[in-house]
Amino acid sequence: MNSNQIEPRLLLGPGPSPVVERILEAMARPTVGHLDPQFLALMDSVSQKLRWVFETANRMTFPVSGTGSAGMEAALVNVVGPGDTVVVGVNGVFGTRIAEMSRRMGGDVVAVEAPWGEIVPPEEMIEVLEAHPGARLAALVHAETSTGIHQPLDEVGAFLRDRDTLFLVDAVTSLGGVPVEVDRRGIDVCYSGSQKCLGVPPGLAPITFSPAALQRIQERESPCQSWYLDVGLIAGYLGAERRYHHTAPINMVYALLEGLMVVEEEGLEARFARHREVGGRLQAELLDRGFQLFAQEGYRLPQLTSAALPGGREEGPLRKRLLEEFHIEVGGGLGPATGKIWRIGLMGAGATHETVDRLLAAVDQVLAS
Amino acid sequence: MNSNQIEPRLLLGPGPSPVVERILEAMARPTVGHLDPQFLALMDSVSQKLRWVFETANRMTFPVSGTGSAGMEAALVNVVGPGDTVVVGVNGVFGTRIAEMSRRMGGDVVAVEAPWGEIVPPEEMIEVLEAHPGARLAALVHAETSTGIHQPLDEVGAFLRDRDTLFLVDAVTSLGGVPVEVDRRGIDVCYSGSQKCLGVPPGLAPITFSPAALQRIQERESPCQSWYLDVGLIAGYLGAERRYHHTAPINMVYALLEGLMVVEEEGLEARFARHREVGGRLQAELLDRGFQLFAQEGYRLPQLTSAALPGGREEGPLRKRLLEEFHIEVGGGLGPATGKIWRIGLMGAGATHETVDRLLAAVDQVLAS
Repeated sequence: MNSNQIEPRLLLGPGPSPVVERILEAMARPTVGHLDPQFLALMDSVSQKLRWVFETANRMTFPVSGTGSAGMEAALVNVVGPGDTVVVGVNGVFGTRIAEMSRRMGGDVVAVEAPWGEIVPPEEMIEVLEAHPGARLAALVHAETSTGIHQPLDEVGAFLRDRDTLFLVDAVTSLGGVPVEVDRRGIDVCYSGSQKCLGVPPGLAPITFSPAALQRIQERESPCQSWYLDVGLIAGYLGAERRYHHTAPINMVYALLEGLMVVEEEGLEARFARHREVGGRLQAELLDRGFQLFAQEGYRLPQLTSAALPGGREEGPLRKRLLEEFHIEVGGGLGPATGKIWRIGLMGAGATHETVDRLLAAVDQVLAS
Repeated sequence: MNSNQIEPRLLLGPGPSPVVERILEAMARPTVGHLDPQFLALMDSVSQKLRWVFETANRMTFPVSGTGSAGMEAALVNVVGPGDTVVVGVNGVFGTRIAEMSRRMGGDVVAVEAPWGEIVPPEEMIEVLEAHPGARLAALVHAETSTGIHQPLDEVGAFLRDRDTLFLVDAVTSLGGVPVEVDRRGIDVCYSGSQKCLGVPPGLAPITFSPAALQRIQERESPCQSWYLDVGLIAGYLGAERRYHHTAPINMVYALLEGLMVVEEEGLEARFARHREVGGRLQAELLDRGFQLFAQEGYRLPQLTSAALPGGREEGPLRKRLLEEFHIEVGGGLGPATGKIWRIGLMGAGATHETVDRLLAAVDQVLAS
């Protein structure tokens, strides 16, 4: 199997999302060195545009050299050390993963659990945080990719604003699709992935740290468990010193910059409106066809729709037909939703009415036979 | 700064090395999903070709989703836990880094130090290992990119063969340029980077674990500190189960596969011979011009030459001229060699006589003025 034999797919799963040609072209530009002044200037542009899309003034904003889960690990490993209390909202795969990673860092995890497909009630998070005033971190998943839940952040952000507990938000599937608003919401650590609503191939995890998070990092007693993801060391490369830390994935950074330019040309508001409109339409059309939406009403992500098939139809074989006969990828369920739902992503370049038309036509055909 | 403004460079630094057009083209092929059967088949091809280039039968051979230092961290974090004794040869940046990472994992590091520019004497490694029969790990850097030293591995590998101590080798700058021979040398954990002698852009770290290493991983009492790099979890994705772990950097994997095909078409022996011949010529020509080679005679890497300039000329301004006037990148020194040497890489597609001609013509010009 070679890459020239790859049959293109319409990527409507939970990510990666469709990548437009100009981003693939950017990625194929000549590789230069990670200490080349040209590349350093390009990295500065990436950081600047990431600040804009995260809606933050945080100086320490950059792409982690890994995929989304490396972003999660980078976020946690820098601020969590042995004995730190970490309050985590858990209502799907990614909250579970935050809890698991935090434990591996020696954190004392307090999970605020909610059923899969529902939000973590902000008032419950706040109640638990009130009971743990010394907590190092409160963590929420903004867009729970395993369920399609759009988690409210404002209340917890407001509650934490004058407290020492840092606020961490997983924005892997939200950045560029729905407003993340890092500064307005008082988020201290936030990360994403290149391959969701930013429409870039997987391989980079944009991340941002607030001044309060950086202060915690400076003051921590135990060193960061990870050398590769240590923000204190990465800062030496990103800062005026330009000290070698590790070799950045040069061509992936070209792709990310191009992707951010695409976002910039569209504008954040217009991009959010497009995702809202197209995702809303898909959800209405699926309901019309007898699908049951898995995520709680009022808290559905437009960019990631989770739905059980009409009439109790088995999801696996029909998903396979979508892929093989129509070259359309949608995702299956995870955890307790395994075998029960489809997860349909309309992210980045995939969030168009044409995409929805093509998907629905295929869905109607596989359901009819 | 945008990637379409990037001025191409002849990459003759310590990496990344020049990337041929067909690899860049492969990287720009359409992104598909990480659970797409097409991609899983492609990943299997990558693993198979990596086994061939590592010269190993190890089933657990794959590209880590990060750059070379992520490979180092993945190698160590899976086998080193709190209280484990780690014997490390330290004669440059990368041995120092292995020691530093091991400490962050709770390892008790015993450093076997040698001056920068010299090998770590095998007999000293063996002596220290005899004094620490319970050591978990012995680590050596095969190609010390900071100095140009080609570390002998056979003696330590033979010594460890019937012992419980695992043998870890950093092959970041050696894989595909000089023989690594994982199985013949009894190496248990070995990692590399895509952007050196394999000639692929940075972003992936090929790695291999022996059955003995995997057994240690299964038996360890404390969980692997890292979730992202946990081989036990990654095995679930690579194995028959195809369980989602993290999203692989799809397009980087296309590039790596293409790079491995280039290596395959040339053949390992021919590739090693080419690196040896061209690197040997460069070193002879530099000596002719009054350069002083930094690495100990008899242990010089052909693919990475470290040299002090003739007549005590200051290296920085001349290196800058090579970049700006001739678009040739060479590296400067690190650590105690900062400001004292150039590091010239002739790796992958860069290891040709034409490259050496172009470099020497430029060097002669900057030295003359």
